[in-house]
Amino acid sequence: MMFDHPENHPVLKLTEDQCWQLLEGTQHGRLVGVVGGRPDIFPINIATHEGSVFFRTAPGTKLAEIAVNDQVLIEADGILSDQGWSVVVRGSARMLERSQEIAAAEELGLRPWVPGLKEHFVKVTPSEISGRHFQFEAYRDRALGEGSEAGG
Amino acid sequence: MMFDHPENHPVLKLTEDQCWQLLEGTQHGRLVGVVGGRPDIFPINIATHEGSVFFRTAPGTKLAEIAVNDQVLIEADGILSDQGWSVVVRGSARMLERSQEIAAAEELGLRPWVPGLKEHFVKVTPSEISGRHFQFEAYRDRALGEGSEAGG
Repeated sequence: MMFDHPENHPVLKLTEDQCWQLLEGTQHGRLVGVVGGRPDIFPINIATHEGSVFFRTAPGTKLAEIAVNDQVLIEADGILSDQGWSVVVRGSARMLERSQEIAAAEELGLRPWVPGLKEHFVKVTPSEISGRHFQFEAYRDRALGEGSEAGG
Repeated sequence: MMFDHPENHPVLKLTEDQCWQLLEGTQHGRLVGVVGGRPDIFPINIATHEGSVFFRTAPGTKLAEIAVNDQVLIEADGILSDQGWSVVVRGSARMLERSQEIAAAEELGLRPWVPGLKEHFVKVTPSEISGRHFQFEAYRDRALGEGSEAGG
């Protein structure tokens, strides 16, 4: 996927389509939940399907937190030497309980980071998706042009 | 760095020393802040120094959120095909204002993801650091042993 930065600006706000394309090509991300004003973050494997994001987890902190507050973020990013991107999905998380939706989620090829015997699927229905692409090279050139000092 | 998983358990809780070693070897991570119960997550470049984590940012949402609520998380992780790790620092964030501490932070070689003319350094003083290392290979073997189905 190409990202064209108008006027070589180092930051490009991604369209929703670009955000979904990046998420679809990514297997891992992070789940952020908040309970009592206190955030937590967990690494997860993710899959996308029909405009939602799915992950799989054994019973534990993640599921307990979602039961208290279903408003979560899912973040995924990718960093290379000359560019980076980050996509954030804000949405509501729900543990799948109906056999038909669990069977459909089984098809997504998701693996939990921590395998357990009783694994559950969680579906995050987005209320908002946003993302940015960063051009590091442009910054480096500009910084050099401004006479930045070498570290040391 | 080697991670020895007792009894081949897929998850290893890391010691604080192991967490710091992983953070010291990592240049990028994510900042999580919460304002009014609503979380936000931002990609950042990080550096560690004397038991604190530093990042650099132009004025904007990150600094505004820290001014409202200085309790943040910094997360970093690394994922390979057969293993992964995640380290989370919980702490309080403070924008550096004294010229001496800013000069010291300049030495850390930090680059912001979004370059700007008026960049600030933020120091996160940890109240808690935790991390886990995941052995995916062990899971794969076990899953195969249990007769998992190939996806299709």
